[in-house]
Amino acid sequence: MSDTEGPTRTRLLRLLRDRGALSRAELADRLQVPRPRLLTDLDGLLATGLIQEAGPAASRGGRRSTLVELNPTLRFAAVDLGASSIDVEITDGRLEPVAAATMVSDIRSGPKEILHQVNEMLGKFHTEGAFERLAAVGIGVPGPVSFRDGVPVSPPIMPGWDRYPVRDLIAREHGCPVVVDNDVNIMSIGERYGGVADSVDNLLFVKIGTGIGCGIYLNGEVYRGTDGSAGDIGHIQVDSHGPVCSCGNVGCLEALFGGAALARDALAAAKAGTSPSLAERLSANRTVTAKDVADGAAEGDVTCIRLIRDGGRRVGGVLAGLVSFINPSMIVIGGGLAGLGHILLAEIRSVVYRRSLPLATGNLPVVLSELGTRAGVVGAAVLASEIAYGQPS
Amino acid sequence: MSDTEGPTRTRLLRLLRDRGALSRAELADRLQVPRPRLLTDLDGLLATGLIQEAGPAASRGGRRSTLVELNPTLRFAAVDLGASSIDVEITDGRLEPVAAATMVSDIRSGPKEILHQVNEMLGKFHTEGAFERLAAVGIGVPGPVSFRDGVPVSPPIMPGWDRYPVRDLIAREHGCPVVVDNDVNIMSIGERYGGVADSVDNLLFVKIGTGIGCGIYLNGEVYRGTDGSAGDIGHIQVDSHGPVCSCGNVGCLEALFGGAALARDALAAAKAGTSPSLAERLSANRTVTAKDVADGAAEGDVTCIRLIRDGGRRVGGVLAGLVSFINPSMIVIGGGLAGLGHILLAEIRSVVYRRSLPLATGNLPVVLSELGTRAGVVGAAVLASEIAYGQPS
Repeated sequence: MSDTEGPTRTRLLRLLRDRGALSRAELADRLQVPRPRLLTDLDGLLATGLIQEAGPAASRGGRRSTLVELNPTLRFAAVDLGASSIDVEITDGRLEPVAAATMVSDIRSGPKEILHQVNEMLGKFHTEGAFERLAAVGIGVPGPVSFRDGVPVSPPIMPGWDRYPVRDLIAREHGCPVVVDNDVNIMSIGERYGGVADSVDNLLFVKIGTGIGCGIYLNGEVYRGTDGSAGDIGHIQVDSHGPVCSCGNVGCLEALFGGAALARDALAAAKAGTSPSLAERLSANRTVTAKDVADGAAEGDVTCIRLIRDGGRRVGGVLAGLVSFINPSMIVIGGGLAGLGHILLAEIRSVVYRRSLPLATGNLPVVLSELGTRAGVVGAAVLASEIAYGQPS
Repeated sequence: MSDTEGPTRTRLLRLLRDRGALSRAELADRLQVPRPRLLTDLDGLLATGLIQEAGPAASRGGRRSTLVELNPTLRFAAVDLGASSIDVEITDGRLEPVAAATMVSDIRSGPKEILHQVNEMLGKFHTEGAFERLAAVGIGVPGPVSFRDGVPVSPPIMPGWDRYPVRDLIAREHGCPVVVDNDVNIMSIGERYGGVADSVDNLLFVKIGTGIGCGIYLNGEVYRGTDGSAGDIGHIQVDSHGPVCSCGNVGCLEALFGGAALARDALAAAKAGTSPSLAERLSANRTVTAKDVADGAAEGDVTCIRLIRDGGRRVGGVLAGLVSFINPSMIVIGGGLAGLGHILLAEIRSVVYRRSLPLATGNLPVVLSELGTRAGVVGAAVLASEIAYGQPS
């Protein structure tokens, strides 16, 4: 996705996406292509309506150049399907959001119901004038994806979705190219495009939500694995005597930490009376959540702090092994439980720095996501723009 | 390293390396380049002496084409530096060995002494007529390498070698391009070129020798990591109450299994009298080795079998996690302890298949290396040919 790769047309559109309006002279400089070829490409793009002229550029001496920019009516749809929610953003060609919506929705309702809801949300945006037509759609789903085929593949928490033609159905509905990827992959794409991991070569983006997964960038490219299931670190065993996981194995990372495990442990602590803070919240709300643990920890409740630290130690132990294996340049912690903040981060860092070899951790930042809950839709919009501008990531 | 990438000249030389003598017509077909450009490239290569004409091709009708082949006097040196040995092969341009030698040598003697020994070995080959001059040298070293700089980087078992200019000194001595890489990387390159992992896209090559390391191919390219230390899986923690490792941490994989750990455990078993087979070997040879454990297991000694199974379970546990993370297409087990054979392999397979998710293991072969002790020199020769033919891997 850098502006040095791909055909001139693609590089030109990416430049206008990332830098805004530029003069023909600036484009020729930055793209380092001969001016006649650039002018031919620009004429072609002007004819398609993807770009337009945008008035005179500031003078650099000599004949004044004209600015070109992406057509301001260009629109992408970015869709992030979670286990229990649908997030949609409509962006312009520069990936700035022009409309956004979230709805509660259970992915287990199955593909027909969920894609119907997505189309309803998009239809509402259309009626409200957020777009005339879409140039491309990017979609993230919470499970393994065959990126080539645009279908989920054996997704454990998505009954009924196996090899369902998500890409082709949405493409037919909206008459535009569509790209489907795993939700953690799109979050890592978002964070690397517009967040803390700007252009990092070898990136691990660890999503700690209800479950735990990892987005992987290697040598500047998303790495998806042989079957599209790379990054499935929630099912790495961390305790051979641990609790049974939803996958049927014992002691998986996400059986011990993540939103579901943390809520379970918090409920047990509230009932056992070891945490005044959680007990109070349980009696007030009849339930406790990961958010309650974060709030309790902020108030100094020792059980809440211990629960977060225990989780951080588990995640850190797995990441220490992955650091030895893949020698990354940066680790970003995202997903809902990144809201547990610096207690979690400090524990993860401590284990990674202690357990991995110095050569691999000497310059290794371990940081929290900057984009937070928007990481997914930002990444989906990036994927949409990549396919519209000529080359999927 | 496929014959569809890189400039025509490189692809042409690779084709002659991998297929032998070909006619101009066959080259034009396989490379899919216009015949005039091919003929120009061939003329250039004939002038350099890298290739030569090799008589008339079998007729395909019409004017008879002439075969071309790599110059039969072309020579590469492949050097595999181990912890306690130096292996050298001289190959022709097709990577067929024309001479080979092994000597016992302690890598801790330091770079001056070791490189002097390498040069002595090469000098002897030269005197004996194995080569007139070398076209390129490939070298593997047992530690992390900055591939770009051609130097070892903070190698734990190589005192005195940190950033020692191995590549540049050998290049000056022999007046040819030199490429330096980690020993496990060259083994994986060898196995993928000439062994069981022919052209596999996403490959983990696990070397179990004195220590344990992993060579990584992703999307058909060697992946070396941010600091050249990727694949250092011997220091992944597998038992937080395990023995102290040479790295200072506790319970690393290679503190529990690998040649050093197995010899330690075998000695303890021999002394404790739990293994008649090992006790007998200890009294006969005053020491026991991994080989003795293999022999004992072959004779049905239950302690020997248990030691191998315990080790396989440890390795399998680490690999199961890496399978979830990287979703490879194949795992190859190599290195000295691959000689423990099918007891080891069966245990590793059993754990990987049980512990990883079905999607990632459905089509995942876990197999023993075919090249055995030659994997390193074969890979070093491949790297040498890649740099000589115009493009390092």
